[in-house]
Order: sequence, then C-alpha cells, then structure tokens
Amino acid sequence: MAKQATKYFTICPWQIAEDHFDPDRNRVAESVFSLANEYMGARGYLDEGTTAPTLRGNYFNGIYEYDEERGGEYLGVVKHSHYMVNSVDFFAMELRVDGVMFDQAKAQISEYRRVLDMKSGVLSRNLVWERDGKRVELGFERFLDMEYPNRAYQRVTVCSDRDADVELVFKTNFDVLHWGQPAHWRQVAIDRKNAGIVCRTQTTSQLVASVSHVAANCKGRWYLSFGDRLACNTLRIRLDAGRKFVADRLIVNAVMKRGGNADELLRFASDELAKQVAEGYDCACKRNRDYWKKFWSRSDIQIDGDEADQQGIRFCIFQLQQTYHGADPTDNVGAKGLTGEAYSGHAFWDSETYCLPYYLFNNPAAAKYLLAYRYNTLQQAKKRARELDCVGACYPVATLNGDEACTLWQHASLQLQPTTGVAYGIAHYVNVCKDRAFLVDQGCEMLVEICRFLASRGQWDSANRYFGYYAVMGPDEFQMMVNHNTYTNFMAKQTFLYTLRAVRSLSDSEYNALAAKTGLTPDELDNFERCADKMLILYDNDTKLFEQHRGYFELPHIDIDSIPSEQFPLYSHWSYDRIYRNDMIKQPDVLMFMFLYSSQFTAEQKFANYKFYEPRCIHESSLSPSVHSILASELGLSRQATDFFGFATRLDLDDYNRNTCEGLHLTSIAAAWMNIVYGFGGLRSDGELLVLNPALPPQWTRLCFRLTYCGSELTVELTQDRLKLLSTDKIRLVLYGKEVEVCNELTVAR
Amino acid sequence: MAKQATKYFTICPWQIAEDHFDPDRNRVAESVFSLANEYMGARGYLDEGTTAPTLRGNYFNGIYEYDEERGGEYLGVVKHSHYMVNSVDFFAMELRVDGVMFDQAKAQISEYRRVLDMKSGVLSRNLVWERDGKRVELGFERFLDMEYPNRAYQRVTVCSDRDADVELVFKTNFDVLHWGQPAHWRQVAIDRKNAGIVCRTQTTSQLVASVSHVAANCKGRWYLSFGDRLACNTLRIRLDAGRKFVADRLIVNAVMKRGGNADELLRFASDELAKQVAEGYDCACKRNRDYWKKFWSRSDIQIDGDEADQQGIRFCIFQLQQTYHGADPTDNVGAKGLTGEAYSGHAFWDSETYCLPYYLFNNPAAAKYLLAYRYNTLQQAKKRARELDCVGACYPVATLNGDEACTLWQHASLQLQPTTGVAYGIAHYVNVCKDRAFLVDQGCEMLVEICRFLASRGQWDSANRYFGYYAVMGPDEFQMMVNHNTYTNFMAKQTFLYTLRAVRSLSDSEYNALAAKTGLTPDELDNFERCADKMLILYDNDTKLFEQHRGYFELPHIDIDSIPSEQFPLYSHWSYDRIYRNDMIKQPDVLMFMFLYSSQFTAEQKFANYKFYEPRCIHESSLSPSVHSILASELGLSRQATDFFGFATRLDLDDYNRNTCEGLHLTSIAAAWMNIVYGFGGLRSDGELLVLNPALPPQWTRLCFRLTYCGSELTVELTQDRLKLLSTDKIRLVLYGKEVEVCNELTVAR
Repeated sequence: MAKQATKYFTICPWQIAEDHFDPDRNRVAESVFSLANEYMGARGYLDEGTTAPTLRGNYFNGIYEYDEERGGEYLGVVKHSHYMVNSVDFFAMELRVDGVMFDQAKAQISEYRRVLDMKSGVLSRNLVWERDGKRVELGFERFLDMEYPNRAYQRVTVCSDRDADVELVFKTNFDVLHWGQPAHWRQVAIDRKNAGIVCRTQTTSQLVASVSHVAANCKGRWYLSFGDRLACNTLRIRLDAGRKFVADRLIVNAVMKRGGNADELLRFASDELAKQVAEGYDCACKRNRDYWKKFWSRSDIQIDGDEADQQGIRFCIFQLQQTYHGADPTDNVGAKGLTGEAYSGHAFWDSETYCLPYYLFNNPAAAKYLLAYRYNTLQQAKKRARELDCVGACYPVATLNGDEACTLWQHASLQLQPTTGVAYGIAHYVNVCKDRAFLVDQGCEMLVEICRFLASRGQWDSANRYFGYYAVMGPDEFQMMVNHNTYTNFMAKQTFLYTLRAVRSLSDSEYNALAAKTGLTPDELDNFERCADKMLILYDNDTKLFEQHRGYFELPHIDIDSIPSEQFPLYSHWSYDRIYRNDMIKQPDVLMFMFLYSSQFTAEQKFANYKFYEPRCIHESSLSPSVHSILASELGLSRQATDFFGFATRLDLDDYNRNTCEGLHLTSIAAAWMNIVYGFGGLRSDGELLVLNPALPPQWTRLCFRLTYCGSELTVELTQDRLKLLSTDKIRLVLYGKEVEVCNELTVAR
Repeated sequence: MAKQATKYFTICPWQIAEDHFDPDRNRVAESVFSLANEYMGARGYLDEGTTAPTLRGNYFNGIYEYDEERGGEYLGVVKHSHYMVNSVDFFAMELRVDGVMFDQAKAQISEYRRVLDMKSGVLSRNLVWERDGKRVELGFERFLDMEYPNRAYQRVTVCSDRDADVELVFKTNFDVLHWGQPAHWRQVAIDRKNAGIVCRTQTTSQLVASVSHVAANCKGRWYLSFGDRLACNTLRIRLDAGRKFVADRLIVNAVMKRGGNADELLRFASDELAKQVAEGYDCACKRNRDYWKKFWSRSDIQIDGDEADQQGIRFCIFQLQQTYHGADPTDNVGAKGLTGEAYSGHAFWDSETYCLPYYLFNNPAAAKYLLAYRYNTLQQAKKRARELDCVGACYPVATLNGDEACTLWQHASLQLQPTTGVAYGIAHYVNVCKDRAFLVDQGCEMLVEICRFLASRGQWDSANRYFGYYAVMGPDEFQMMVNHNTYTNFMAKQTFLYTLRAVRSLSDSEYNALAAKTGLTPDELDNFERCADKMLILYDNDTKLFEQHRGYFELPHIDIDSIPSEQFPLYSHWSYDRIYRNDMIKQPDVLMFMFLYSSQFTAEQKFANYKFYEPRCIHESSLSPSVHSILASELGLSRQATDFFGFATRLDLDDYNRNTCEGLHLTSIAAAWMNIVYGFGGLRSDGELLVLNPALPPQWTRLCFRLTYCGSELTVELTQDRLKLLSTDKIRLVLYGKEVEVCNELTVAR
C-alpha cells in the first residue's frame, strides 16, 4: 500500500511556504503552520477567522478537563479520562475595510504568500485584497516567545492604494469549541486595563489568563468592550492612501495548573505584559531569531542532494523543539504536541522510546525532565498498579496528568510497554548522559517499583518452568490478547537485569536510602533475578527467528499485498475482531527490541527476523517505517532503507496519512530524526560506547548532523567519498566496528 | 466456595409461602412471586405499594426500547442495543381505611401469609391490620390467564371488626421507572369507559393498552379520573362491622408489537374485557386451575424423600411454563424471563442449549416455536454476519428482537456458541421430534446459512493443515480471546457434518428448492466437508484429555480453593484482565460438548476430562453445576452428582446467588429440569434412540417424571429397589445399555 503524498507546500530549505490559498487544505495548513513554545501552542488558523473549514485551536501544556465518567462495570477499566482542552483564542481578530469584513476564503486576493520561517519562528502572511478597484495590502505576522514562554506576538499591517476606513477588532475569546462542542470555560475575572480575562476549567479548576496590549502607528478611535468570556479591543482609523498601518498586539498568557487566585494570576500577567511592551515587538522578534539561530547551530541536520528531505527534517526538528525542550518537568510530549485535539493531548510510550533519543543527543536536560515527569507521576503509576491487582508502578498507556486516560481496557490493561519503556528510558539516559546522580536519586526508585509491577503482573506457566506475561498486547496492536509476547517478555527481562545491576552498583548508604524509601528487600531482588533468569524468550536457533508470541507462527497467513489499498486504514474498513486473527502486524515488535538492544543480537539474527517480519507488517502505526528503515540501513539493504525513509520527514508536510488536518504527528517527527541519525548515521547507543556506522543514502550528496555527548559536541559529516568527525573534546566510540578516539577531527575515506 | 442458602420461604410441595413479611427480603419475594403467562409478566410486588425496597415491574414479551446509540469507532461493534422496558403497572392500587393509607412495611400486621399456589397459579396474600384497636382483615389475590393471555385478575377483600370507611384506588399507571429512571411512555389514547390508557414506546413506537373493570359487592361512591399516563378508579364505601367487602378488578392488557392504530387496539381490548367480565373472576379462576391441573398431569416431576427438592423442581417447572410455552413464535426465553429488568429481557444461547430439552419432552410445539424464532430472525443474523465481514448467518449473543444487543465486542464478536447452538437445537429437535417437514422447510435453510458463517469465520493455519477458529471465546468466558477453542471447533464440526447429512437426505425437489432459496452450490458443500474434515480438535490420546484451547494446558495454574470466598463474584473483585490469565474456568466448555454429544465419547474419556476440568471450574455461571451433576451421575460419582445438584432446583427460592432480587434465573431453572431428567434419569437424546440410565440419588425414595416422545407419554418411576416405565405406545429405547421396547409397562428390579 504505497502512501500518497499531497504536494502542497513550496520546497525550500528553511521555510514552509504556501503560495496560494486553498480552503480545502486550510485545516492541514493550520496544523503545519502551528506555533508552540512548550508552554502554549496555537494552530496556524487565520487570525481574522474564515468561512473555510477550520480548527481554531490554542492549547496550554497541562491544561485539561476530565471526561464524563462512564459506567463501566469491570474493575481496572478506566472510567474517567481527561483531555487537553482547547483554550483561549488569543490571536483572534476581525478586519474590516470600508465596512466589509475580510474573509480570505471569499475575497478576491492576489500576491498571496504564507511562510513559516524556521530560522526565526515567525509565521507571516501577505496578500493583496482587491475590491472595487481598490488594492489593499494586508500583512499578518505572529510568533511565540521561546525564552519568555508567556509571551505571544501578533502584527497586522494594512496599506491601501486609496483612502480607506479600517476597523480592527482584536479579540481574546474563551468561548471556544472543543471537538465541535462548547469548551465550557468559566470566566472568573477580567482586567479592563489590559483587555484581560481569566477563566477556569470546569472539572479541574485550572486557571488561564490572557491579557494584551495593542500599539498602532496611526491615531484612531479605540474601544474596549467585554462580552461573555470575550474581550474586544476595537480600533477604527481613516487610513490615507499609500500609508502603511501597523498594529502590534503583545499578548501574555498565563496558567495556574493547580488553580489558585485569579487576581494573583492577573497581576503576574500584567507585570509580564508591561515588560513585554517595554521591549516591543521588533526587539522581541530579533531576540527570538537569536534563540533559533543558537538552537540550529547545535541541532541542525544538513542534507544536500534532496531539498525536500532537507526541508522535511528541519520541519521535524523545529516542531520538536517548539513542542518540548524541557522547560517544565510536568510537561510531556503529546502524540499531537500542541497542534490539535486528536489523541486528547496524551503522551504515550513514544516519549521514552521515540522522542527521548533526540533529546539525549541535543538537550540532555530536557531528556532528564522527560524522565522526571515519570518520577513526578510515580504515585499515580503505583495507584494504577493497584487498580490492576498488582503492586509496584504501572505507567499509563496514555496520559496528560499521570493518570491512565485510556478507557479501552484492551489497551490500558494489556499493554505493558509504557512501563518497560520508562525503565528503558532511564537506562538509556543514564548510559548516554552518565547521570549517576539521577539514577541514585530517582531512577532506582522508579526501577524498583517497575520491577515490582512486572514481577506481580507476570506469571509462571502451569509446570513452574518459565516466567512471562499472559493476556498482553505488545506494541503491535494487531495481536491483541496473547501470551508470551516476546517484546514484553524481553523488555521485562532487560528491566529486571538493569535494575539488578543498578541496585548492586549502589553504595551501602545509597542502597539503604533506597531500601528505606521503597521497602526493598533482598528477597525481592532474588525474585527479580529468578523472573529474569526464567523469562521465556521464544527463539528458534535453527531459523534464528524470535516468535512474536506463543502460537504466532501457526496463525493464519495473510498476504498483505493482497489487501486492496482502499481498505486502509483497516480499523475503518474491517470488522474489529477480523484484524486480530492472522499473522499481519501493525508495527514490528520483534524488530523493535532488536533495535533497542542492538548490541545483543547478531547481524544474522537481525537479518532473519527482518526478512520474516517485514513482509507481514502493514505500518498502520506511523512509527513503524522508521524502525524498518534503520534496520535496513544496518543490514545494508539500502534500497529498502531509502524506501521506508520515504515519507518519514514529510509525513505531515505531504499529508501522507490524510489526517494532518487533526494535528501534527509529533512523535513520528521524533522517529524521523532517529531514522536519519540511527539509520543513515548508524548510531547505536545501547552499549558502553557509542557506535557509528554512517552510510550515505545514494540520493544524497552530503549529510551532516551534530550530537551533544558527555559535554562535547560531535559533528558527523558524511559525503559519498568520505566521513568527517569533528569533536570539541576527546570521544571514544566504535566506528565501522573499530574502537576509535575522536579528538578534534577524524576523516575516513570511503 | 460453598454457596449460602437463605431459607426464607416455607417448604411445601405445591406452594411457595411466606408467613411473615420482611421488608429486606421484599425484592427477592417480588421475584419469586412473579406471575407470567408468556404474553405478560408481573413481579410479585405489593399491589398497594410499599415503603420497603421494591422493584415494581410489569413486562410484555417483545415490548422494548432502543438504548441510546454509543459512539463506538470500531466496525462490527454494536452501537445500538435494546431492552425489554418496564411497562404499565396494572395491579397498582391504594387502600385506605378511615383515611389511613395501608403500608405493609409500616403497619402493625398479624396472621400474615402470602402464598403462590402452583396448582392454580394464584398469588394470594392475607393479613390482619391492627390499628387503634380495630382488626381489619385484608386479602389480595391475583392471577394471569393462561388461556386468554390478555387477561389479568385482581381481587381485594376487606373485613373490619368495627364499622370503617374504606377507600380503594385502582390505578393503571404508565408513569413507571425502568432501572430507576423514567420509562418515557407516551400516552396516545384513553378510554373513559374502561379506565383505559394506550401508551407508545419512545423509540420503537410499539403500543400497549390497558383497560379494566372493577366489580364490588358493596355499593359506594365511584370516581374515575385521569392524570398523566394514569387512570384511577376510586371507590369509597362505608363498611359495616363484620361485613366482607370484595372488589374484583378484571384487566385486559394488549400490545401491538409493530405499532398501529391506538383506537383499534382499544376496541380489541374493550371487546376482550367485555368477555372477561361476562365470565367473571371465579369462573376464570376455576378455568385457570383446570389449565394448571392438565399441565401438571403431563409435566410434573415427583420427588419423594426431600420436600425442598420437590418444591424446588415444581417451582422451576411452574416458572418455565409461565415464561414460555410456545404461544407466539416471536417470543423467546429471556435469561430473567418476565421477572425483572436485569439482562434487559435478552435471550441467550441458553434457549437452545438449556431450555429446549424441557420443551422437547414436554411441549414439542413450543420447542418448534423456539426454533421458529430463529428462523424468523434469520435475516437479522445474516446482517450480523455481514457486519462481522463474514457471510451466512451469525446469531446474536443476546437479543430480544433478533438483532445483536450485546455492546461488548469481546462477547458479541468472539462468541460463536449462539450460532452453533441454533444448529444444535435444530438437530436435537429433529432427532427427538422426528419433524422432517421442519428440517426441509426451515431447518436446512438455517443450517446452510450457519455453515456459511462458520466457513467464513474460521481460518486455516499458516501451513494450511487444519481449520479452526481464531480469536474466539467459548462458553467459558474466563478464557477470553483464544485460538482453537475446542468447544467452538467441535460444535462447528458437528454443525458442518449434520448439515451435510441433512442436505444429502433431501429429495431432488427439496434440494432444488433449498438451492433456489439459498443459492447453495455443490462447491460450498465440498468446502463445508473440507472444513469439518480438517477441523482441529485438540486431543491427547494418552491422557484422553481435550485441551480447552490451544495453549490452555500451559496456562498458569490457580488453585481455586485458595481464592477467598469474599472475592466472589470475581468480576466484582478482580481486575478485569486478571480473570483471563490462568487456567481457571467459569463454566465447563469441554464437559459441555461431551454432554451434548454424549454418544460420541467413551466413559473413560468423560471420566478423564471430568477429573481434569472439574477442579478448575468455579461455576460463576449458574448453568455450570447442572452440567457437572449430570456428568457425575453418568460416571457413578453419586456424591458429586448430589453436591452439584445441591442448589439447582432452589437457586432462586433460597437466593444462592444473592441476586434473585433482580429477577429469576429462568434458564438455570431449565438446567435444573435437565439435571433431574438427564442427570438422575440418565436421559440422553443425541443418538438414534433415547437412552435412559435412571439412578435414584440416595437422599430420595422415589422419583417420577414423564416425557412426551413421538406422540407417546413415557412415565419413568424410580424407587430405590425398582424402575418402572409406563408408556402409552410402543417406544424403543436403550435402557441401562440394552435396547428395549416399552409397551404399557416395564419394570426392572434394582
């Protein structure tokens, strides 16, 4: 099933541009033009509103509502979910010229261009509105402050070739829709001076304040008015022909995640607004550009030879940084980031498995904060384990606040990879960043609780010969309720083993502190060891194949190429149960653990399993192709590596999955980064030393990426005839199978 | 986990009696004192209302509402369920003496006795209300007409030892609750002459009319008034000391299941009421007693030696007859009959598997109607198969109108035993009742469609060696989503084989008619044969054990005796997933098919499997113990046969499951009949000839039951020293392993 690209945006290395307006692509463009700064996010909707299809979305990290409680009768099934709620529409406005409201979907426009500039983080839109022989040039610009996360900026310019009456209404609107339904914000305070409103969520009593100040370069009449959860700052001017009118709105949004005093929040917001006004739009914009410049100098990936890939990977990196950069340890990376309501803003196991590597090698502090998020929600994971009649800590399949939010028991009760994923993340972080203090202070406690859960959820077979997991679903969600899923068993085994090593590496006083905190006993450690030792790993030494789960090999075979392409996605075309009764897989369980613990497997094993499982995988998960591409690279299957890479960087830009309109695939974006660095760069980070096996794909002339590693910066530059490594400090690593030390520069001819 | 009996009702062979009133047992008593006549049912609530806990329920067979549609995103998952709705409260009334309303829960009462008389079908209640030194004798009596199913009867008597003012308000009330919520009946017509109301259901536009006439033996003042969905017939009299006041309300209820004209329905009801009034209460009561007398002469089971069992089995037979006797081929047997709202009035696979045998040997016409119900809903079963991406006919797990009503996909999509159950029912019916015409006219068409479904739902293993079912749940709902459940595979195989035999037994013209109706081709029959031939039946010839499903034998073992009794029922105490990951079973899949196809298995096989599976079964299904008891009888394990029989006949009378308050376990009641006739009577009906192996349990001195078989009546009378068979015609059967012919009488000393 070849995916179909929709080529809509202009290819350009540092910009995403739209040079005409297509109302039918408006929701996709809104997603792609999303801005965020981890604290808040705004979809790229048209400031002035539109009659085109639109999803006006503004979100704050950690601001959410509870769903209605459902009347489930079974224990351990989540009844009370929660979701990131659409919040204040702070870029809202209306624009009228000579009394006619501007609607880009209906107006006659020309010279249209909308650009997201990834060097500056600015989204701008310029066009000419032609009406009654009058040419009105309009400009809209916005950006979010990456350093002062409360601050947002909006600029509107108007210039007419004849005199014109211009009316601008800058709106702060909490009366918004969430999934098409009223979002139920409750107004609790207003600020007449700063067009400010404070609203409260309905079920969580969180507070969000929005205040703003408008500065214009023309005198006119000003009105400030308030409606229900709405503040309007209206400006009417008579604009002389040829004169350029510029209005800047400086906005401060502020939240209190745990609720609190609305007046206090307003005071904070207006203080912040005063500072913002003092700095002004242009200075802030320059400062923000400097932020991005510094960022790109550290985290850019350069690809020569394919501008679409170059644009694509920069878009990925840009959006990752916007979404999460470790500003707050209570934030996480939602599957759609802050770009839409789909997936309810929830974070999944993707955070540790797909996103963490990017941060490990670009922003170790952010990587640590991702794990701190799990430490901060350890109590909720312990509560969840008890709900499942287990002990220890069970991390949620989907969450925003740390509680399990997935109401489908078949996922929330059967999928253990979120929990083993946290353990894997801890191990990976400690291995790459050498942060022993984290391991001692927080890591071991999480690991012990995770092992407790794994020991209590696992079971011994009828004859007490081996240990493993019954009634589980691995990451491959097309094999729903199976026994001895090898991914689950293998990851649990690694978790036990790593925990035992970690605990045994503690000093006496560290161990005693851990024991005091967790009640850990030597008997428990013995039990963990027994579980690891007797863990059933289904492996056939003759074929070198791991069996995905007990009985998988005898499942009815389906030739996935025989499935008509119009039947995808299968969930929309096949009866639910039908998906689960054949050997088709959604994403590659076995290949996944062979990649995560790459150093434990031989090339022969990898090859055998790749050859077996690849033809059975339909990649209905957007994370799947990258794993295949990475392994294909390693196995020298460069054609397949390139094919699977195909849409990794441009999944959203070219709307391959037909659902970018709902928001960006943020965690797939992270997988695209892995695809380049682990795939073509051949990075492996599960061993003692970093491993690099760079291999430039034939369609590129040059690839250059940079890794932050143990305080050094390692630059990897690869052309078809040579590899150059640059390091700011000495780094030992395994290059093409040989241990080398990089000091300043190392060049290898190819 | 021994079940605990609550001994509440008086033991008496022909009556269920309560000799004091316990408000806390009121809801249980309401269930036990339920009256029904297949057309309608009324729980045994107190006519005059009560402040005690109560579930006032009145139901009509086939009168239902649709649930709100749920937003499920997966295909094949039922979104729109339906439920039998609580309907007109036609025995409602108020009683005041000297202006004080009678409330049995609060009044000072004596000489209390409530009796359900199974010889007459009359429920009566007599008591003395003592107040202010006055003794007021009250009597309440009701019954439902078994011959004229629209008719209901209510009698109230009052006698005071001093002069008294008496007020009776007879109410017809549609403003009722369903599961504690308003039932949303809509009034569409009234009949001022007969205190009549017609109401319509909200979602199905069905009509229910209730009209009534009150006749009293004293003159007084009468008022007829109407409120919202309420008609009140008020009667006020001055009652002289010692005079017995008698008021009879004659009621006609009538429904239009497919909606229609309310006035037409009212006309029918008032015509019927006129006939009922002409006959009068006493004559109708006598006629009803004659009905029951005739019924008992044919269907009674006599047990000497244990009056509790005697009472229990009569209660079972009485309630079965009340619930269903084949009055209408669009009726079925709900799991709770017409005695409560639990299970939504739905019928399950129990109808063919547990209820059908009773009818086969007592009321063959009703047995045929049970199967006609499936024929009448064949189109819906075909639609359901298509929803599951299959062809042919898939019968619902739970239904009232023929549509699948179970919204839990894990049951509705994975359980195939309703479908194989229908095929089994057809085969069983044809085998016992020799009704070839039914097989030709309706049976074969159903069988072909069922086989089509089974052929399309089943799959071949990866190597194309064997056929079977993947992702299924057998009747044992504690093994949720498994492959090659042996019950499913075995029953499907039998279905294919029987269908092939049936189709091949057709004459050319019959076959051509079938092919024309169904499009059946020889290729299809070949395919059915291949599926049957290669069906995987997991069997170990060394141990003689059938494996319940692929992998069952290696599942973690749990010692069910180690589970604390307070953890039952497990669904209320265990995390949902925990139930599904060990070798504990809820009901005995393997033993079940070995019982249904008894003649195909040796005693050695039965013994081995009984010994293996019995200790793993927790009998969380109320149908399970009877199957164990029957097999234990066959295997000569008389102690276990007796133990498992323990509560079969008195499940509801002694409230073993603690939920009789919600309604009677009608299908368990049917299993109790099987327990006696198939268990102690040793009847088997799956072979060419009937098999009998009667063995009187030690605690009884005599057992006598009667079977209707091929137009004859066969009486089986068993004492400790002899077996006597009486037959009205010649019957050939296998008695204690030897073929015999019973003609008039056959006595065997023991």
